[in-house]
Amino acid sequence: MDKLRVGYIGLGAMGKPMALNILKAGFPLTVFNRTVEKAEELLTAGAEWADSPADLARRSDVVFTNVSNTADVLSVVLGQSGVREGVRPGMIFVDNSTISPTGSREIYESLRALGVSALDAPVSGGEIGAQNGSLTIMVGGDAESLELVRPILNAVGKKITHIGGAGAGQIAKAANQIMVAAQMVAEAELMIFAQKAGADPVKVIEAIKGGAAQCWTLDVKPQRLFAGNRTPGFKASLQAKDLAIVMETARQNLMSLPGTAVSAQLFNALCAMGEGDLDNSAVIRVIELLNNEALQTA
Amino acid sequence: MDKLRVGYIGLGAMGKPMALNILKAGFPLTVFNRTVEKAEELLTAGAEWADSPADLARRSDVVFTNVSNTADVLSVVLGQSGVREGVRPGMIFVDNSTISPTGSREIYESLRALGVSALDAPVSGGEIGAQNGSLTIMVGGDAESLELVRPILNAVGKKITHIGGAGAGQIAKAANQIMVAAQMVAEAELMIFAQKAGADPVKVIEAIKGGAAQCWTLDVKPQRLFAGNRTPGFKASLQAKDLAIVMETARQNLMSLPGTAVSAQLFNALCAMGEGDLDNSAVIRVIELLNNEALQTA
Repeated sequence: MDKLRVGYIGLGAMGKPMALNILKAGFPLTVFNRTVEKAEELLTAGAEWADSPADLARRSDVVFTNVSNTADVLSVVLGQSGVREGVRPGMIFVDNSTISPTGSREIYESLRALGVSALDAPVSGGEIGAQNGSLTIMVGGDAESLELVRPILNAVGKKITHIGGAGAGQIAKAANQIMVAAQMVAEAELMIFAQKAGADPVKVIEAIKGGAAQCWTLDVKPQRLFAGNRTPGFKASLQAKDLAIVMETARQNLMSLPGTAVSAQLFNALCAMGEGDLDNSAVIRVIELLNNEALQTA
Repeated sequence: MDKLRVGYIGLGAMGKPMALNILKAGFPLTVFNRTVEKAEELLTAGAEWADSPADLARRSDVVFTNVSNTADVLSVVLGQSGVREGVRPGMIFVDNSTISPTGSREIYESLRALGVSALDAPVSGGEIGAQNGSLTIMVGGDAESLELVRPILNAVGKKITHIGGAGAGQIAKAANQIMVAAQMVAEAELMIFAQKAGADPVKVIEAIKGGAAQCWTLDVKPQRLFAGNRTPGFKASLQAKDLAIVMETARQNLMSLPGTAVSAQLFNALCAMGEGDLDNSAVIRVIELLNNEALQTA
């Protein structure tokens, strides 16, 4: 059996290395991006260029998207010259973007009417994970479609979980962000708390990181903050965007999430300060301002 | 050199197994407790009984306390027939209770006037850690005093960190509880969020626990909650008490901790419902009520 022909739309910080890994795994690849310059490395490596999402779909068996938000995905898939105009029955569509579960369900229904199976497959693991193919992928949609594209996903991720029907991948990603945001806020609050109360936050982190508070966040982020390093990693503006999806989904489903609501407001504040391009751990900047206290740096 | 004679006051769920481990390590032990029945196992094992904290202090080189709250420690140490009445210069006092940093500093100053060095040494690791001697111990006070009693602490803990001066151990413990509480609340919110939005929370936890959200909490607590098991572990009422210490310390030092403030309120709500004797992960009961949704159990 010939290898599936893959199309990849959206060659940003995540999409470009993921598309490269798919190409390296031997899948014939066609790409599209709003700004053509970002495709150069891929074209040099052997990928082909499509003039539109519809054109890309006509030349592919499986179409991936990886763009910024719900509106962008809907436009690229359902808009003029979008993916939907180029599909044929039996194709599979995979969205690696993090968008609202309702957006993913709308795409699923729209493409199903044309005999196309859509998977929402948001990822976790950041740019490093995208580059070395070690992403966590949370998948919603038809399980049999996931099995058909799993050989492609294996080129970009190391843990691929089928969560449930359309939108379930987005729900899992949103749930993931609830915990990540809570840890970032708690890390910031506990370090400023310790320092302002008179204890050395370096020693406090060292003492507590192996106990009941243990988490990946405490394992890697404090040492970067103590070194004055607030570059991403994972951008605070994306954390804020993902928390907005959580709160929008919560409202649609009549949910109350008091802790997450506060996390979302603190990340919004960081973005309001013009610091959204920093790492998500930089939410400590908001806690520093609230407490008139700057974290010590080495 | 003869082994230091140890006195241990407060033989509750934590203090009793800790005192037993000190006795097993070969230190001559005298004990005191409000209710004498809780001392029986220790007396059978070779410990001696003291009629009051003052009496216990007279017969010891190092005096430990492990009681419920700041007022109890102050009473046992500074009150009538308290430890302070029985001390002599050169002795060391070690408080394993989790109390306010200001309470620890008050005791430090009061005992220092009599030539006694006080260490605040709260622990983390729960009843299991107390039983098998694997506690994390965060120590405030004079570093040289810690070195003198370290052979005794080695019998109860595996990670012993000197954080700083008097009260610094309590600050570290409070900081630890900021992160633990945040994780408990986030775990609860993300599981109810996922379930109510239509995804299987079991699969969501499985997908996210190894990624950026990784933490000891997600490693051990969801499987207990899915099994309907909400027994402690670490009691929610103690989590609420420790968060009250955080917020009191924050107020004294003019701090603003928006995330922790919400965590404290949710644990207060759990206690208000009469559920404070459950595990701290049972804070999901509050999130369940707020969302009119019960977590699925196996």
